[in-house]
Amino acid sequence: MKPNFSLRLRVFSLNCWGIPYLSKHRADRVKRLGDFLNMESFDLALLQEVWSEQDFQYLRQKLSPTYPAAHYFRSGIVGSGLCVFSKHPIQEITQHIYTLNGYPYMIYHGDWFCGKAVGLLVLHLSGLVLNAYVTHLHAEYSRQKDIYLAHRVAQAWELAQFIHHTSKKADVVLLCGDLNLHPKDLGCRLLKEWTGLHDAYLETRDFKGSEEGCTMVPQNCYVSQRELEPFPSGIRIDYVLFKAVSRFYISCKTLKTTTGHDHHSGTPFSDHEALMATLCVRHSPPQHNPSPTHGAEERSPLISVLREAWTELGLGMAQAHWWATFAGYVTGLGLLLLALLCALTAGGGVREIALLLWAPSVGLVLGAGAVYLFHMQEAKGLYRARAELHHVLGRARDAQDLGPESQPAPLLGQQEGDRAEEQ
Amino acid sequence: MKPNFSLRLRVFSLNCWGIPYLSKHRADRVKRLGDFLNMESFDLALLQEVWSEQDFQYLRQKLSPTYPAAHYFRSGIVGSGLCVFSKHPIQEITQHIYTLNGYPYMIYHGDWFCGKAVGLLVLHLSGLVLNAYVTHLHAEYSRQKDIYLAHRVAQAWELAQFIHHTSKKADVVLLCGDLNLHPKDLGCRLLKEWTGLHDAYLETRDFKGSEEGCTMVPQNCYVSQRELEPFPSGIRIDYVLFKAVSRFYISCKTLKTTTGHDHHSGTPFSDHEALMATLCVRHSPPQHNPSPTHGAEERSPLISVLREAWTELGLGMAQAHWWATFAGYVTGLGLLLLALLCALTAGGGVREIALLLWAPSVGLVLGAGAVYLFHMQEAKGLYRARAELHHVLGRARDAQDLGPESQPAPLLGQQEGDRAEEQ
Repeated sequence: MKPNFSLRLRVFSLNCWGIPYLSKHRADRVKRLGDFLNMESFDLALLQEVWSEQDFQYLRQKLSPTYPAAHYFRSGIVGSGLCVFSKHPIQEITQHIYTLNGYPYMIYHGDWFCGKAVGLLVLHLSGLVLNAYVTHLHAEYSRQKDIYLAHRVAQAWELAQFIHHTSKKADVVLLCGDLNLHPKDLGCRLLKEWTGLHDAYLETRDFKGSEEGCTMVPQNCYVSQRELEPFPSGIRIDYVLFKAVSRFYISCKTLKTTTGHDHHSGTPFSDHEALMATLCVRHSPPQHNPSPTHGAEERSPLISVLREAWTELGLGMAQAHWWATFAGYVTGLGLLLLALLCALTAGGGVREIALLLWAPSVGLVLGAGAVYLFHMQEAKGLYRARAELHHVLGRARDAQDLGPESQPAPLLGQQEGDRAEEQ
Repeated sequence: MKPNFSLRLRVFSLNCWGIPYLSKHRADRVKRLGDFLNMESFDLALLQEVWSEQDFQYLRQKLSPTYPAAHYFRSGIVGSGLCVFSKHPIQEITQHIYTLNGYPYMIYHGDWFCGKAVGLLVLHLSGLVLNAYVTHLHAEYSRQKDIYLAHRVAQAWELAQFIHHTSKKADVVLLCGDLNLHPKDLGCRLLKEWTGLHDAYLETRDFKGSEEGCTMVPQNCYVSQRELEPFPSGIRIDYVLFKAVSRFYISCKTLKTTTGHDHHSGTPFSDHEALMATLCVRHSPPQHNPSPTHGAEERSPLISVLREAWTELGLGMAQAHWWATFAGYVTGLGLLLLALLCALTAGGGVREIALLLWAPSVGLVLGAGAVYLFHMQEAKGLYRARAELHHVLGRARDAQDLGPESQPAPLLGQQEGDRAEEQ
């Protein structure tokens, strides 16, 4: 690699809102998206909510001359909806499916059936190792009473851990996707603090697009105006996040978003706005490396956000235990009712009513039993994330107590020099 | 780190057979295991099938003076059963739950409820980064007609990918656990070929223990003699696997197994035999590095095993699709039956019989619907693993066609020098 090495990386990210039969003008939007991606010829296009594999195959075929490499991340019952198109060969692919992702009985929300995940691509660009991640976290259906908050925080933690553990050898880390988190939300802060990723919108000096970088705006004809009422400019929940590690320096030259309408056809690509970033990677002397070092002064926001997440997951666990206990009692009651019905059926008298009630009782026992098992598993999942957070918190506190000379490796955040003598 | 650096690492691995209420002499065995671990003072004790968290807490308390660090990996409904006790501080912890893990309706096998997983610990020992993994794959209930084969192959692939992607910065990689795979089974070969891990039993010159290194032996009073009938010496399904990367060389000085009976008390620790390995890590000049380089001559076994796994997962997918289709038809028939029963109940005549059949019909529709969704998700999970295998196969073939000068990085296996120019 030459000493004056410099690499320009153009990336595109969009939540495509591609729900078969439900999303308006889907076929037309997918077609126009394909035309746009071909015309713009990005290095990487990372898409979310491509729920139909046919849409992916259509795009794959259409984009193959410009983007020879593509991958669709399959998971859950419906799929993760994630896919990627790359101008460059993809060296490695893997994915991680989030342990917690909503509730199966919330059928009308549907997230549970999707198997939300994070996909990883490893690319080698001019000798540089790029780890590109694409993800989509659980939706927020009500900001006032968000029953999925603990799940989204757990997902943000799993995402941060997945990036942390799989990017140790990468030179550049890129994360694109719909996080369903506002910039100051706990999950977003946790992710950024633990991974050291930077927000393209906050970092760039050249931003063009919607007000405050919002990615769901009231100008978009597909967006529910009622839901955006509390946010007159819209909300920013889609992100391009990045960092350079080891010998590299990365900056965001330009960031653009669409603004709710396409000048050519009048309708936007999706109910979300697309993000288009131009990143520049170059060699850097060590002192210019912007990676967080989590020194003593930088450790305290990390500790504070870890503590906040730990508390939030604790509340989620209590809730999960409550539901498991409740479902356990209902199962017991259902079994009692079944026994009573058996006795009535055998006896006579109200035999017909007993027979009629037989089906709902069986349903009750099976349903409540399943809910019990589900919430037991939910509590385990939350406990697991909480235990990991607790471990990191303990190490962060130890490091703070011992002072800057003995920073433990997981808190360095940077990829070099993390071999502190431990014994 | 001194140039004559050398590190001795003593590890212990055991499937503890700790099923509450079902496993014989559990409390006594756990107590004696704790005494033994305290007496031997290993660097790491990696346990499987510690299903009861109370057992873990008991051991944690008992072992805390010798092993100050411990972690219990929670997942699924019951748990993963995995836990670890370490003499050295644990720097980082994470885990990955396998996407596929049997069938929920196979209640008497129970694996699905456990949430089988792989746990990762990062330790820093005298400046050396050690990634230690502990896992337990889906059990094999019948070798002749193994309905879980595709799931176990998919688990072996996920395990290999997890190790591959999370150990890129590690100096030493260690994997202990019950793989439920015989040494020549597809999953075992796939894991070893893709990660470059070496088998302690095959590598050591000093082995003491059961015949052929078996970890389930007929001499063990807890083992079902009928199940071991085809294998007079027993079976080897528990492993200590290791590799050193970058600047290090690792060897297995000694490997011991228990032999089915404890001389002091007469009963063994578990129905599995324990593995005790002494590993030695030292600096190595690059030419002595035993890590596989997947050169042209070494690529062909990799390609062959990838192809075999790809085919096996294809068979699994076909099976999953068959079950999904069958369950879909049954759901449809159940719905028809329900409609008929409604008509009969409203009409009269065989009203009582109609009412009696109401409950099983509702059960049929709900049950078959759930089976349909489950197998759809199974097919997606298998497809995902297959797509990853396909990608690796494609790159392996490209590398073979192009010759040794242009080996793609994922096939190098080693941690250094994987920055081939791609464009």
